[in-house]
Amino acid sequence: MSSGPSPREHLSEERLARAALTYLAEPGDPALGALLAICSPAEVLAAIKADMLPGTGPGCGDTPASRAALDRALGRWRARLPVLPHEERLADMSRDGISLSCPGDTDWPGALDQLGQARPYALWLRGHMDLRFACSRSVSMVGSRAATSYGGHVAGEIAADLGERGWAVISGGAYGIDAAAHRGALAAEAVTIAVLACGVDYPYPAGHADLFAAIAGQGVVVSEWPPGCRPARTRFLIRNRVIAALGCGTVIVEAGERSGALNTARHAATLGKPLMAVPGPVTSAQSAGCHLIIKDWGASCVTRAADIIELLSPLSAPDALAPGGGPGRRSRPDPDAGRTASRDDLDPDSARVLDALPARGGAGTSTIAVEAGVDLDTVLRCLGRLAGYGFIERCDRGWRLRRS
Amino acid sequence: MSSGPSPREHLSEERLARAALTYLAEPGDPALGALLAICSPAEVLAAIKADMLPGTGPGCGDTPASRAALDRALGRWRARLPVLPHEERLADMSRDGISLSCPGDTDWPGALDQLGQARPYALWLRGHMDLRFACSRSVSMVGSRAATSYGGHVAGEIAADLGERGWAVISGGAYGIDAAAHRGALAAEAVTIAVLACGVDYPYPAGHADLFAAIAGQGVVVSEWPPGCRPARTRFLIRNRVIAALGCGTVIVEAGERSGALNTARHAATLGKPLMAVPGPVTSAQSAGCHLIIKDWGASCVTRAADIIELLSPLSAPDALAPGGGPGRRSRPDPDAGRTASRDDLDPDSARVLDALPARGGAGTSTIAVEAGVDLDTVLRCLGRLAGYGFIERCDRGWRLRRS
Repeated sequence: MSSGPSPREHLSEERLARAALTYLAEPGDPALGALLAICSPAEVLAAIKADMLPGTGPGCGDTPASRAALDRALGRWRARLPVLPHEERLADMSRDGISLSCPGDTDWPGALDQLGQARPYALWLRGHMDLRFACSRSVSMVGSRAATSYGGHVAGEIAADLGERGWAVISGGAYGIDAAAHRGALAAEAVTIAVLACGVDYPYPAGHADLFAAIAGQGVVVSEWPPGCRPARTRFLIRNRVIAALGCGTVIVEAGERSGALNTARHAATLGKPLMAVPGPVTSAQSAGCHLIIKDWGASCVTRAADIIELLSPLSAPDALAPGGGPGRRSRPDPDAGRTASRDDLDPDSARVLDALPARGGAGTSTIAVEAGVDLDTVLRCLGRLAGYGFIERCDRGWRLRRS
Repeated sequence: MSSGPSPREHLSEERLARAALTYLAEPGDPALGALLAICSPAEVLAAIKADMLPGTGPGCGDTPASRAALDRALGRWRARLPVLPHEERLADMSRDGISLSCPGDTDWPGALDQLGQARPYALWLRGHMDLRFACSRSVSMVGSRAATSYGGHVAGEIAADLGERGWAVISGGAYGIDAAAHRGALAAEAVTIAVLACGVDYPYPAGHADLFAAIAGQGVVVSEWPPGCRPARTRFLIRNRVIAALGCGTVIVEAGERSGALNTARHAATLGKPLMAVPGPVTSAQSAGCHLIIKDWGASCVTRAADIIELLSPLSAPDALAPGGGPGRRSRPDPDAGRTASRDDLDPDSARVLDALPARGGAGTSTIAVEAGVDLDTVLRCLGRLAGYGFIERCDRGWRLRRS
């Protein structure tokens, strides 16, 4: 396994094309998804710029009906060409803590490929945590913006408990349940991932600028929209499929019967991911959506972090997640969940970082970086990956080897 | 179908024997259950009085092991002979609003036969409602004595709503959830059934004397223990199987993880009856038992009366319960639930009462009694039966024919 391009590496033509497409097309555009299934991103970008449909090129399918749809799509995409940054500026954006992850990159979460043609063209990331491995043991936790104090309390407690047990918490960065979930994970010094419906550098809601900075420092802020992009009403719904796809399962903490959180729940169910809900008073409208999906959608009733972990890892004993595995291991519901690997599968940087950890006790991140002879960005990415594989875990002093 | 003996009829020898056995043996005594499976109640009573094991008689099975158990049981039963009332006194007890229902009586709930040898020997009743038909559309609703204001409120609301939709509410007459359930049904002028662990005339808890009087007036107070009998700790647990067996399904409204209500829930599950629980705040210990049985026992999450009715009557449209039925009718989970009958199946008194109802509009109970030419006790019993069959329903003016 080779390490993906570092944020400061020069962006390849394919990666630059994907970055450009995030400016030109809305995520989940069926016409672009269909084109990318048969043409390379660079081919598609060139065709848009040339105002020449890629269907005329070799290897691209073409029918009268799809031709008409592509014509309309081409018009939409070309209308945005004036806002497309120059190539130098695009490459420049992948600096200052912001980077791009593309399908095929080592940090690209394979779970997103379940979205088929609705897969993101690319993801903009703010933060140094390795996204793929942060998501390998993760829970998507969402809920109502108009949360009650009960819902906020419960979301925070469960998120903190998940974090303490080594699970990352994914949410949408909104007020209410989302914020409580992120803050709970942050309080437990755990990894948390905010999936936004605007640029990763765009503070929406404005009151969450500090929260997003904290998430970027300890986890990662993710978006399908390019830096600087503003949120829009429809974007939240499009974004929800990514929240559902990234987590090993989705938990709804509080939601009215018409809450957008149920949209995320539906995506999780459609993807075949475990769907869970936290019950609440039957007299509370903010719990009505949770009860609805337990009653009618078959969501599992969960009341604490242990319930969630049990549902996501049928063999939840630590040994079952340890590297190498044993004869008793079974396949998991989500192919990305609880991913394991042997030492031989590690990329050279990660192997060097793993060797740098002391045999006993823990060590701080910078100590490990010096010992391994890698820079801080690299050590952070490798530590996230190694934790995802189950080789190492957090401890008071930083990181330590995990007992198998 | 012939009408069962009225409370004032002379008690037959078999019925007197069953009444006597409720004085001598604790309900659910396996030795007595086994004996009654092979000998008549009168034979068993005679054998106890004669200090001669019925196993020596013709037709009764006998092994050395069962013989030793019967010897011990005989000692227990004979020890209580001094408290057994005289025969005249026994017959006399079946007056003043108290009556006895025995297996085979027309008001005996067939659902109790599911208990096998643990079936009650007989039931003491206080109230005039026909027990069998009150139970034919009924929900057992139990929960913690130490209910929260949330639990009490929810139990009362759901019980009232069930009552308004024609369902009887069965509970245990205790403080907390039980009392809220009974009171909710009473407030809706619906039938409610209290199953006590002491005599039907014994006010336990003392603060519920008025409540029991109200239940007897509008529904029925039930016990396996004879009049005057005091409650005891173990009796509540023995009693719970009857609560679970009488209802078409059981709902737990609030219960701690060690609440006695979970004992009732387990009986319902063992009997294959629908088991339901009302969720609550995950921060409340009084809802922990409800969440436990949803998560681990497969109890259905319910938040309102409509959920319960839907689970108990897969074809919950009123037509599906109308007499006569049609080609679309399916069998129900509980053979006693939603029992239907044709006019030809009615006993003569019920048929006369049904004929006495006006073709349009409603009539009061005493008007119907005069019109039908039966006494008030009889008209009350028949009205309960006809409502259970789905021929009639309550209305502002009393009772009216139900539109099919």
